[in-house]
Amino acid sequence: MRPYKKDPAAIYAESFATVRREARLDRFPPGLETMAVRLIHACGMIEIADRLAFSPDAAEAGRAALAAGAPILCDCEMVAAGIIRRRLPAGNEVAVTLNAPEVPDLARDLGTTRSAAAVELWHDRIDGAVVAIGNAPTALFHLLEKLDRGWPRPALILGFPVGFVGAAESKAELAGDPRGAEFVALRGRRGGSAMASAAVNALAAVEESA
Amino acid sequence: MRPYKKDPAAIYAESFATVRREARLDRFPPGLETMAVRLIHACGMIEIADRLAFSPDAAEAGRAALAAGAPILCDCEMVAAGIIRRRLPAGNEVAVTLNAPEVPDLARDLGTTRSAAAVELWHDRIDGAVVAIGNAPTALFHLLEKLDRGWPRPALILGFPVGFVGAAESKAELAGDPRGAEFVALRGRRGGSAMASAAVNALAAVEESA
Repeated sequence: MRPYKKDPAAIYAESFATVRREARLDRFPPGLETMAVRLIHACGMIEIADRLAFSPDAAEAGRAALAAGAPILCDCEMVAAGIIRRRLPAGNEVAVTLNAPEVPDLARDLGTTRSAAAVELWHDRIDGAVVAIGNAPTALFHLLEKLDRGWPRPALILGFPVGFVGAAESKAELAGDPRGAEFVALRGRRGGSAMASAAVNALAAVEESA
Repeated sequence: MRPYKKDPAAIYAESFATVRREARLDRFPPGLETMAVRLIHACGMIEIADRLAFSPDAAEAGRAALAAGAPILCDCEMVAAGIIRRRLPAGNEVAVTLNAPEVPDLARDLGTTRSAAAVELWHDRIDGAVVAIGNAPTALFHLLEKLDRGWPRPALILGFPVGFVGAAESKAELAGDPRGAEFVALRGRRGGSAMASAAVNALAAVEESA
């Protein structure tokens, strides 16, 4: 068996040092640089730094929203499972509506996916919320449609849907017109719940070593 | 707003068709081809097909273990959250020991990470189990050390730890000497909980469309 590193603090420090050494981070404002580092750390891919789209004040908006007690609206249970609750500044609600009992019927009535139908149930909490989408392109598309139809704006949309149908397109739609919300999104097919969780955790983290 | 696809069955079909059109899958035995397709679907990266290491009977061993009621041992909550319980063939236990109360003290005593210490608590369930590691390289290294010290063998190790310190190395150690267990692993820095969950779900799925 080869020797390996076991000290958690040393592992964290070496991980973040590797990311900072290898990634091009100079185009990010400070709060978003921290988020970029954590996103890279979560997926093991240095090169995603070059594919992140964002509004310049996204990190500040997200931090302020969390400090003010905003809920975090997630498109799937995996995103919620990855959010480190003890770091949230105001005991913020982490909500997933995908498995609410009314969602299958709602999806059928609306002629869309369960992930998109679940977004309908965010209506009472969307104003000023932090949205974290780590799975379903249709959830992001559906949210943008609701914003076009007059829904209150979330403070921040973290757009990390993944896959081959609609992921790249939904994130391009968000980046092309964020409908007045702040946003961070990974362009292209890549994404996932670990990145969406990491983006939330980056907003809540005080120090990079923790 | 651009038009987008909303029909879940059509989205699944087009997704899997895209993966099968773009990925090189000819080197995989049938059960592992299905798993490779689902892994690619989960991460949006066609090219991971070329970085998967595996033992030829891994899929059959995993399916048989699940059918026989084997537990699924996960290194973190996100992996467990991504496993579609209703598809499991025998109401299989999905266990995560990372947040067990004794783990922090155990990690301190052993001089390792909490993720590695949590593996100690798998001892009574490891024989014939399906192991799904989607986060921590130290969990995979620790498991291999325990196997070297005489632990009973799991039926299958799904190795998808991610990151910059130990991820590539732990998966190379597994692929180089799987200690008599069947295995699937993604070489290199990439990995993650969504892939580990997808690998489990591939074992439990009957049809690709579902």
